[in-house]
Amino acid sequence: MAERIGSVTSDVSRSDFLRACRGEATDRVPVWFMRQAGRSLPEYRAVREGVAMLDSCFRTDLVVEITMQPVRRYGVDAAIFFSDIVVPLKAIGVDLDIVPGTGPVVAEPFRDRAQLDALRGLEPDDVAPITAAASALVGELGDTPLIGFAGAPFTLASYLVEGGPSRDHRRTKQLMRSDPDLWHELAGRLARIAGDFLRLQVEAGASAVQLFDSWAGTLSLADYQELVAPHSRAVLEAVADLDVPRIHFGVGTGELLGAMGDVGADVVGVDWRVPLDDAVQRIGPDRSVQGNLDPTTLFAPADVVERQAARVIEAGRAARGHVFNLGHGVLPETDPDALARLVDFVHGYERD
Amino acid sequence: MAERIGSVTSDVSRSDFLRACRGEATDRVPVWFMRQAGRSLPEYRAVREGVAMLDSCFRTDLVVEITMQPVRRYGVDAAIFFSDIVVPLKAIGVDLDIVPGTGPVVAEPFRDRAQLDALRGLEPDDVAPITAAASALVGELGDTPLIGFAGAPFTLASYLVEGGPSRDHRRTKQLMRSDPDLWHELAGRLARIAGDFLRLQVEAGASAVQLFDSWAGTLSLADYQELVAPHSRAVLEAVADLDVPRIHFGVGTGELLGAMGDVGADVVGVDWRVPLDDAVQRIGPDRSVQGNLDPTTLFAPADVVERQAARVIEAGRAARGHVFNLGHGVLPETDPDALARLVDFVHGYERD
Repeated sequence: MAERIGSVTSDVSRSDFLRACRGEATDRVPVWFMRQAGRSLPEYRAVREGVAMLDSCFRTDLVVEITMQPVRRYGVDAAIFFSDIVVPLKAIGVDLDIVPGTGPVVAEPFRDRAQLDALRGLEPDDVAPITAAASALVGELGDTPLIGFAGAPFTLASYLVEGGPSRDHRRTKQLMRSDPDLWHELAGRLARIAGDFLRLQVEAGASAVQLFDSWAGTLSLADYQELVAPHSRAVLEAVADLDVPRIHFGVGTGELLGAMGDVGADVVGVDWRVPLDDAVQRIGPDRSVQGNLDPTTLFAPADVVERQAARVIEAGRAARGHVFNLGHGVLPETDPDALARLVDFVHGYERD
Repeated sequence: MAERIGSVTSDVSRSDFLRACRGEATDRVPVWFMRQAGRSLPEYRAVREGVAMLDSCFRTDLVVEITMQPVRRYGVDAAIFFSDIVVPLKAIGVDLDIVPGTGPVVAEPFRDRAQLDALRGLEPDDVAPITAAASALVGELGDTPLIGFAGAPFTLASYLVEGGPSRDHRRTKQLMRSDPDLWHELAGRLARIAGDFLRLQVEAGASAVQLFDSWAGTLSLADYQELVAPHSRAVLEAVADLDVPRIHFGVGTGELLGAMGDVGADVVGVDWRVPLDDAVQRIGPDRSVQGNLDPTTLFAPADVVERQAARVIEAGRAARGHVFNLGHGVLPETDPDALARLVDFVHGYERD
């Protein structure tokens, strides 16, 4: 068994996914999907029946099962850990819930310095069922890498400050501009929590991490650089010594791609608005790219999907490494068979 | 009286707003706000009390009053006609309503070719109370120009196809990709309606038009060019002979700015994500720009607002002409006094 684990580990390291992240040549273009573990899969809806979202994220058996489902069904090149960006906040005792159809809702939105104390550091015991799931997954996954993940400080802060999802992030931006000291303290605490959460996942066996800054695209580059980048950098630095590729993704981030790479990403995720060859110009040659088929494309006829996917693959050749993905998460209404066909198409794509 | 109208007309033409649109030198940087006519003003909420949004758009007295309110209060350099992008659709008999807190909701979402017949051409009688308001406003406004407006075909189509606001525009994109012929017929009809609506507003006295493509920013450049640009061009061409500046605006359109100018805009509106000097690089030297203070900035202390507004004005000097505006509509919670101070700041800004 020890031998098998040994060989599995080295197979993971030679996987197309990790090779593409590192900018090494691959046999095929590796592919995985954001939100592949859930929402659109009938087997996901079956195991989630009667279990609240946040409860499922703290149940080792469900995390393992749901993380495995898309790997079994699609043969994707990486498993994304089933969780939610607010999980570490819940784990340290923040009173929040994920409301179906709405998203994370925080009982007492962040308003002043006194509330900083509630944001204590994350201890391993807080997330024991979660790291147990990561450990179990490494055995189950064999030579398929596991991607750990966390939400970036700006996005986490925006849930805390707005109290829930927001179209304009008005209160968060108000805090940033009205009381930058308090903002930096809040974001700094969230960076430590996110960094510790990623670190625990890697120590439990994840072989890559993705830092999601879902809402960064609502910021101008100047605001991002001054108020957000230092904290995202701190998160990625927290796992810098662990020798795992660090992916950094946000949506609508065309103006921020270079800056998001510069905070310490090995791979920059790109949404569908920027062709990957343009993205490489903005990001520079020393990072790989991930993306970027428009998720709505999967509702089009198969020949349209293939034409657009081919365009993505060709544009991705401008990068030192390319991990195929959608430009955002899988939409809940997506036909799983369309995703399966897309994986086959990407894997079978002939490279010159 | 005839003389006065004659002199008013020529004063309008010499206004800083129209001069900036045409790329001529101005005494001050002209400023107006999207959604300045409504939502955040107490006098707006007072006259709207008990009147549904769409009803108010068809009442000549209310359109005149609401359009005038921000001009009186702020001394902005242009009045934006109080209306909604779905007004011409309502006017030709499409069964839709504007639901408070949601937005436009369409009773029978567009699904097939048989529904094209409902999208008949717009006749002057359909919008008689509206053009009457435009005519009345020209007298009331004196030397302040009136901006007419319409929704662009993609955005109008997205409401018709989705049945209401949508985060992902999945069904609209599905139609575009699955049945491009039907898409082009739908968008072509909407372009004629929007073009006719703009034309009627100008003939009634509007001295500029703004074409809103609120959702264009969800499209890749390739999709925009192939599926959307020809129809937006048709709208702007419908008023090309009327010698009024044509402003074209969408949000999150950093990748599309050049293309949105190229469909025939004299002024390209820019959201807060792209600094105006960068925007000029993308748009080219032959068009003016409009924008682009982040609307959430108005919730910050006055010195922060002024610093950011100064940055916008300085960046706008790269353009042949600059109309100051927010990068998106005024948020409903905005303090009217903050907007008043911003107008004064822009008007008082010292130019070299």
